[in-house]
Amino acid sequence: MILDKVDTPTDLKKLTISEMETLANEMRELIIKKVNTTGGHMGPNLGIVEATIALHYVFNSPEDKIVFDVSHQCYPHKMLTGRKEGFTNPELYNKYTGYTAPEESAHDIFKVGHTSTSVSLAVGLAKARDLKGGKENIIALIGDGSLSGGEALEGLDNAAVLGSNIIILVNDNDMSIAENHGGLYKNLQDLKESDGKCDCNFFKTLGFDYYYVGEGNNIEKLIETFKKVKDTNHPVIIHMHTLKGKGLPIAEENKEAFHWILPGTLDKKDEAPSTTEDYCSITTDYILKKAEKDQSIIAISPATPGAYGFTPEFRQKLGRQYLDVGIAEEHAIAAASAMAKYGAKPILAILSSFVQRTYDQLSQDLCLNNSPATILVHWGAISNADATHLGSFDIPLISNIPNIIYLAPTCKEEYLKMLDWSVEQNDYPVAIRVPFGNLISTGEEDLTDYSKINKFKMVEKGSEVAILGLGNFFHLGKQVKEALKKDLNINATLINPKFITGIDEEMLDELKANHKVVITLEDGILNGGFGEKIARFYGNSDMKVLNFGGYKEFTDRTPLEVLYQRYHLTTELIVQDIKNVL
Amino acid sequence: MILDKVDTPTDLKKLTISEMETLANEMRELIIKKVNTTGGHMGPNLGIVEATIALHYVFNSPEDKIVFDVSHQCYPHKMLTGRKEGFTNPELYNKYTGYTAPEESAHDIFKVGHTSTSVSLAVGLAKARDLKGGKENIIALIGDGSLSGGEALEGLDNAAVLGSNIIILVNDNDMSIAENHGGLYKNLQDLKESDGKCDCNFFKTLGFDYYYVGEGNNIEKLIETFKKVKDTNHPVIIHMHTLKGKGLPIAEENKEAFHWILPGTLDKKDEAPSTTEDYCSITTDYILKKAEKDQSIIAISPATPGAYGFTPEFRQKLGRQYLDVGIAEEHAIAAASAMAKYGAKPILAILSSFVQRTYDQLSQDLCLNNSPATILVHWGAISNADATHLGSFDIPLISNIPNIIYLAPTCKEEYLKMLDWSVEQNDYPVAIRVPFGNLISTGEEDLTDYSKINKFKMVEKGSEVAILGLGNFFHLGKQVKEALKKDLNINATLINPKFITGIDEEMLDELKANHKVVITLEDGILNGGFGEKIARFYGNSDMKVLNFGGYKEFTDRTPLEVLYQRYHLTTELIVQDIKNVL
Repeated sequence: MILDKVDTPTDLKKLTISEMETLANEMRELIIKKVNTTGGHMGPNLGIVEATIALHYVFNSPEDKIVFDVSHQCYPHKMLTGRKEGFTNPELYNKYTGYTAPEESAHDIFKVGHTSTSVSLAVGLAKARDLKGGKENIIALIGDGSLSGGEALEGLDNAAVLGSNIIILVNDNDMSIAENHGGLYKNLQDLKESDGKCDCNFFKTLGFDYYYVGEGNNIEKLIETFKKVKDTNHPVIIHMHTLKGKGLPIAEENKEAFHWILPGTLDKKDEAPSTTEDYCSITTDYILKKAEKDQSIIAISPATPGAYGFTPEFRQKLGRQYLDVGIAEEHAIAAASAMAKYGAKPILAILSSFVQRTYDQLSQDLCLNNSPATILVHWGAISNADATHLGSFDIPLISNIPNIIYLAPTCKEEYLKMLDWSVEQNDYPVAIRVPFGNLISTGEEDLTDYSKINKFKMVEKGSEVAILGLGNFFHLGKQVKEALKKDLNINATLINPKFITGIDEEMLDELKANHKVVITLEDGILNGGFGEKIARFYGNSDMKVLNFGGYKEFTDRTPLEVLYQRYHLTTELIVQDIKNVL
Repeated sequence: MILDKVDTPTDLKKLTISEMETLANEMRELIIKKVNTTGGHMGPNLGIVEATIALHYVFNSPEDKIVFDVSHQCYPHKMLTGRKEGFTNPELYNKYTGYTAPEESAHDIFKVGHTSTSVSLAVGLAKARDLKGGKENIIALIGDGSLSGGEALEGLDNAAVLGSNIIILVNDNDMSIAENHGGLYKNLQDLKESDGKCDCNFFKTLGFDYYYVGEGNNIEKLIETFKKVKDTNHPVIIHMHTLKGKGLPIAEENKEAFHWILPGTLDKKDEAPSTTEDYCSITTDYILKKAEKDQSIIAISPATPGAYGFTPEFRQKLGRQYLDVGIAEEHAIAAASAMAKYGAKPILAILSSFVQRTYDQLSQDLCLNNSPATILVHWGAISNADATHLGSFDIPLISNIPNIIYLAPTCKEEYLKMLDWSVEQNDYPVAIRVPFGNLISTGEEDLTDYSKINKFKMVEKGSEVAILGLGNFFHLGKQVKEALKKDLNINATLINPKFITGIDEEMLDELKANHKVVITLEDGILNGGFGEKIARFYGNSDMKVLNFGGYKEFTDRTPLEVLYQRYHLTTELIVQDIKNVL
């Protein structure tokens, strides 16, 4: 293999074009095998192999700095910068993260996982270089839908007037995660169709020097262009047209499905679609039924429809009652607020990790205007996710904003009842923390009137110890109750708070009569969260309060068992902690 | 006066052009007099008088919806929509807010005060209209620097593909709050110089139908263009060139200084610049001295330099060591992170109310990468501000993000010591909550080593009651201590926590020996804040904890005395609450 000879980018510089083309094919095969084994970003990485080779051939990383946007396209880069064993040796498949990681290599400048950040980060590097009198090239590699994010657009606007070297490589693969949305992508289309020559050029209007590479998977053409702009003294855009999923026919044809895949996807025979219910399927079923009857219902997603079960079929059925705004979370929340204000019924789905991209819009556009939009927050949980995609910060983020009602259902029935209440009411912005994990159904219809806000549900009245099990962790609370009975013969009180954004003062006051300890369980960090509010409430009383939840830290692919031990989130450890204060 | 005849926009439609021109002059005089009396946005409102008249002449508000960006340019709109008494009658000068307010009038669609939101809000209204089958015009009025904000750019990208009626009026007055920054504004300049005709047209690249009005203060020309686009079936941009401060020569010449003025500014004779020290002046003094010695120091502001004392002279002295990124807070934080990562020493100043525009960048670009940038958070305090500009949310927002150190100085000496420590260290992202209000100097040099993080300062050791007075409220804590001595003969412990992001567990543990009550005082909302963490810490003990701070609510120009009463933030009320638990 040619790859055997390449340990660092320097080795690459000795190869011929033809050898590099062979290398590209070798790398692609390894990526396909590895990603199909571990899961991960397939299409984006297959499309960027040639550009990565050409970049490292022409530029001198790590002196020249390459900043990867989202950094989900960094697999070829990792293979060429001392980490190929993570792709050649199946035993080391999990050694390296799927994103750039400075702790792994000097060739990785930032830890990145959210989109649209690369241009601003590159501008910062370039400015620091200029202050220090350096001459190195600063390169941002952005694409795959990220251009439409506000941070990227702010970055482009500023990069254009930097007045010194910065090279922004736009990887245009015709796609976001799903299809692209927005006027900008129409302009990219016009540019591609005119071989980069049409008068109407978004990048030129901002003041960039613009280069177009139509054959973005042609190493020779890429090298030619990169050489032209190397050591430029002004801001440059290289717009290259690549093929997402290149070399894997099924990925080339199914770009959305093969953006990110689960392990073993390529080995699966044609299967009938799953008929098992989950929180995504019951959501889409609900929306489809509701939308048929009510033309003002509209489902909104900011660019990651797959994560919410918003399949192509679902989108097609909804027609104009579905809106994907592309990667533009700020716009999504503001627009949803306005829709709700003007009588439509928006249901916006977003991941916990991405809802934090839109704090100001939640606060100012949505909550200050008290618009009755519905926001579904998915994947809110302590998990073994990458540090860039943790779902444990949404409770502090959302629940400390005035006016919004943030709800934590514990099962299918509660979730659907809350969702329907939210859609039909006109008094509050509502967010619902969609339960994480397998669907739990009690089979009992939820008859709660959620317009009576901040009413916790007393599930079982006991004494001595009261357990407030929030959302995902209600079930842990049930287990703790059972263990307390078994181990200490305590008949504990079990409460399902349901409301994250307020406190049932009446119920909590009543607990004072015959309880010594209240414990809170929440599936997120403790700092700024639900439990601390309970601790504050009881601060002037004799009640002991123990808060269980995560620490304020960026964990990175840490196994869940390790986290649960660290945070005392097992029945055994919780009972032990309760014993200590009884 | 012509204005006497105008109570609603309908009355306007009966006027001749010449009468409307007279009306414009009348309105301008009233605005000058009113704003000079109460303080407020002078330049922006003087520039938009004609456009507002023309809008209401051509369109039918409130059926047609006008969304004001920032809404600091809404004074003429208020005068024409039933609220002119707020400008004609000095006794009613404070009756209406300086921003659009739906509770005041059906002509105000949203409560708005942050920039760059209007396009997304208008897109949402338009989409709701389309779902409901309506035909009304939806208009966004944006300008005065707001275009460069990420939310506005996301909004434009999406508005361009709406496929139905939306009219975006770009008020180009050559200015942001200070001068404009970014490639986009160069394009606006090219467009102005070519009378809207140059090939390179930012708006057209996104797909908008584009109209240019060079004489943006000419009512007749404006009416002509508005009539052309009224009831359009597709997205339209009208780019109009107006004169900021029009009609007030000193405001026309000093656009930055007259963007927003204090009461009585026009009556002041030429005065020597103030020589009184304040937290802004000691900051700029520090930066200037430091920057002279260290070329890697760089001061950054996202478009509101005046609020931090970053005067034109300061900016000029710093030269390339100063960077205003325009209204682009997300870019500012990300770029500052990269600068710090690459060896520069960025000091970024931002208002508490605006730091919330950049949560994800603080979390992902800055803190996850642990970049040692310095962020100065100004105006963080409970105040009588408009609901859109409250400074009471920054503690929950910033302090629950991992890695960052958020510091709360209580006087000049601590502030400068913290600032210098932050600039010189390489271990943490640091934010400093710049004290709010008059400068307090103890005269004693602060010798603290802030690299020993989370060490609170024991100011005076006592017993029974311990007072944790954070930042601005340390001085309130001192008063409470004195009152406790006087009223109850309690020799209370007084602690200056200094660190908002961590807890001095050792010191808090020691308090258990001879204290019954710990109280916390913080100048911001309680929810998710500092005090709740202290309550959580003591949850497993017998210590009583009382948290004092603001409620989770959007207050709106509520007098500070009222808020302090409501929140029990007076010495008397605090002492009473302490009595109740002793």
